[in-house]
Amino acid sequence: MQYNPVELILKKRDGQALSEAEISAFISGYLAGDISEYQMSAMLMCFFFQGALTSEINALTKSYIESGESISFAADLPVADKHSTGGVGDKISLMLAPIAAALGLYVPMISGRGLGHTGGTLDKLEAIPGFNTQFSMADFQNLVLKHGFALVGQSADLVPADKRIYALRDVTATVESPALITASIMSKKIAEGAKYLVIDLKIGSGAFMPNLKRAKELAKLLIATGESFGQKVSVVFSNMNSPLGHAVGNALESIEAMEYLKGNYLPDTYELTTTLVSQMLLMTGEAKSAQDAEKMIQKVVEDGSALAKFTEIIEAQGGNPKVVEDYKLFAQARYQIPIIAKASGYIQAIDARTIGYSLVRIKAGRMKTGDTLDYSAGAILKPKIGDKIAPGDEIGIVHANAKAEGEKVAEMIRAAYTIAPNKVKPEKLIYEII
Amino acid sequence: MQYNPVELILKKRDGQALSEAEISAFISGYLAGDISEYQMSAMLMCFFFQGALTSEINALTKSYIESGESISFAADLPVADKHSTGGVGDKISLMLAPIAAALGLYVPMISGRGLGHTGGTLDKLEAIPGFNTQFSMADFQNLVLKHGFALVGQSADLVPADKRIYALRDVTATVESPALITASIMSKKIAEGAKYLVIDLKIGSGAFMPNLKRAKELAKLLIATGESFGQKVSVVFSNMNSPLGHAVGNALESIEAMEYLKGNYLPDTYELTTTLVSQMLLMTGEAKSAQDAEKMIQKVVEDGSALAKFTEIIEAQGGNPKVVEDYKLFAQARYQIPIIAKASGYIQAIDARTIGYSLVRIKAGRMKTGDTLDYSAGAILKPKIGDKIAPGDEIGIVHANAKAEGEKVAEMIRAAYTIAPNKVKPEKLIYEII
Repeated sequence: MQYNPVELILKKRDGQALSEAEISAFISGYLAGDISEYQMSAMLMCFFFQGALTSEINALTKSYIESGESISFAADLPVADKHSTGGVGDKISLMLAPIAAALGLYVPMISGRGLGHTGGTLDKLEAIPGFNTQFSMADFQNLVLKHGFALVGQSADLVPADKRIYALRDVTATVESPALITASIMSKKIAEGAKYLVIDLKIGSGAFMPNLKRAKELAKLLIATGESFGQKVSVVFSNMNSPLGHAVGNALESIEAMEYLKGNYLPDTYELTTTLVSQMLLMTGEAKSAQDAEKMIQKVVEDGSALAKFTEIIEAQGGNPKVVEDYKLFAQARYQIPIIAKASGYIQAIDARTIGYSLVRIKAGRMKTGDTLDYSAGAILKPKIGDKIAPGDEIGIVHANAKAEGEKVAEMIRAAYTIAPNKVKPEKLIYEII
Repeated sequence: MQYNPVELILKKRDGQALSEAEISAFISGYLAGDISEYQMSAMLMCFFFQGALTSEINALTKSYIESGESISFAADLPVADKHSTGGVGDKISLMLAPIAAALGLYVPMISGRGLGHTGGTLDKLEAIPGFNTQFSMADFQNLVLKHGFALVGQSADLVPADKRIYALRDVTATVESPALITASIMSKKIAEGAKYLVIDLKIGSGAFMPNLKRAKELAKLLIATGESFGQKVSVVFSNMNSPLGHAVGNALESIEAMEYLKGNYLPDTYELTTTLVSQMLLMTGEAKSAQDAEKMIQKVVEDGSALAKFTEIIEAQGGNPKVVEDYKLFAQARYQIPIIAKASGYIQAIDARTIGYSLVRIKAGRMKTGDTLDYSAGAILKPKIGDKIAPGDEIGIVHANAKAEGEKVAEMIRAAYTIAPNKVKPEKLIYEII
């Protein structure tokens, strides 16, 4: 190649901006095998420490996109998607996508798997017996055009550069770089053909963003990158200090999503789903106001058309549509272990991260890529911050196939609840929308 | 292993100090293949950006030493060595080691090869027909005990961790880290058994250190690390803005060193050699003052005993000792190409780095590890900063086996001399000694 990789690393290391040609050469050289894994990891660490200019992030995003295939939809189709930065109990995509499709939007949703304490939409979908998430780009596009949405994993042809680099970041402590996060998220969301994108940027103990200030810096990069590729982006800053809804664990979350689509809302998932779909409807011009949007959303849930859409995609993607009516078709855990409160008072905090990590012990999540899951494993956790608790109250139920481990998890989850005598106000779920 | 490598990288990345146990686990895990090259390169880049505490540098140095074999000499032997941080025309080791040995010191000198614009002692020695620099640790120690010195390369058993990590640093832009430089230099110099060490820390355009301030920061680390392993360290800060002596190139520099040992001193190499050997004599207590030391040094050169020592080691290491008397036994370049001045005035500056890099074109140096050398190639450059030059004057002579390339090099070297009308004072060669 035309550039010396060591000189490019050196340039970035010393705080000089790389040109589009240099970034493109580095990425394509890496994919061609001319630049080694260790040189890429050194470069990624330089991005972590030095940050990147908008021009560099755009170049990185472009080179990711150009490493694979892209989808483009007809100009008049309202193609909109959502991205979440990851949390605990986050099954919003499973409600949002069928609702949006029922409202006439086209949602080409490409999701990821869970890792560490956070869950992944793909795993929740695959908890549905037979549900297939692996499609070629062409088949994926056809699903979206036919059903208004599809729920798939990243194919080998979609931004393969990002796929390889993400795996490398994961094992080299270079995940938490706003520049690299931006290129990774946006390249997928641009290559999949979304013209509108709402990002659920989660903040708090269960998210990777510690505070609103840092989240806003990332949001700026995400919006700027989307815009430079002609995509309209809206960011919803949401609270991830405690798990969303009641269920944490793959089958349990799928069931909770189905219940939602049957109108059995929970307050927090209702607020977040409605806010995110509303942003999609407002951006695409399908709704004139948030109030209108909320009415439209309620209608497609209450008339059963959103649930019908979900049933339709389950069947289209090879899953057993009967699960929607018969939850016994999901894998069932052998043990239901209650989590019993010992303290008396009000819930001050719920450590979502600890809950996520504890559930990895019973395979509701995975510690590293490739770990197998037990779809039936998880927990139902009903009390929320501010709720009153007395000794002997049931905080929740752990679903596990291993009794001793399940009891350990129940104990860990109990300890994740901070209970104290003083009353507390529930925290806000949505901080801000931009 | 006991530690998660990603968590250790993360810890260092976020500015927390690693413990001795963590550093030891990371290095031994790397050597055992449990930690990959890309994880090591990410960690090295974190050391570059975050620096390191003395405790971390000591732990790194210790783990380098423990990765291989160490030599130890009897407590009463004055075992002293010199290290140079690398420059252009630096053949000091070839004079210093035999002089020190002739004065009763034991010098277990382990040197490196040239890379980029800088030359390497090993290459200069190997320009001597038959000279072998590869010995086991035991044979190396025996040579030192028998002859008072030996001039060898790093064996596979000496700090193998440093050897592997240095090669990785070279291709990942992580060379210029004071912490990593310190561990790399000091681990070798401690493992070879030197009790006293003088470091020629070069500053200027031909060195990797740009200024005295940065050099002093490095010197502090070098001295502290040596001390924590019971080694006494002295640092000489020297000027590397222009090449040392007249010769640049392997055979030419060997010959210049032999001429020196015959009493044909050049002012700059005399000053630097004498200063460095004096430090060795003062540290070991063999001399009471710099004046005494200088007299002792002059004596062993002028009575021929230093040259005899050099001849002795050439023979002991398999070289042809007749080269000392017959320079025609060295490889001879086919073309001698004069470098002719065009401008009139005084030499303001000599760009040593450009000269070093230009000579790589005729294989007097190498661009990357493993490149082969032409020992006969190089240049003789007599004028120094402050000298008066007129158009048509000979600045020097390029020795090359390829005429066109040699002429190009002559042109590049000519351009490396800045000539202007104003008189200039020659620069100081030795800035400071600590």
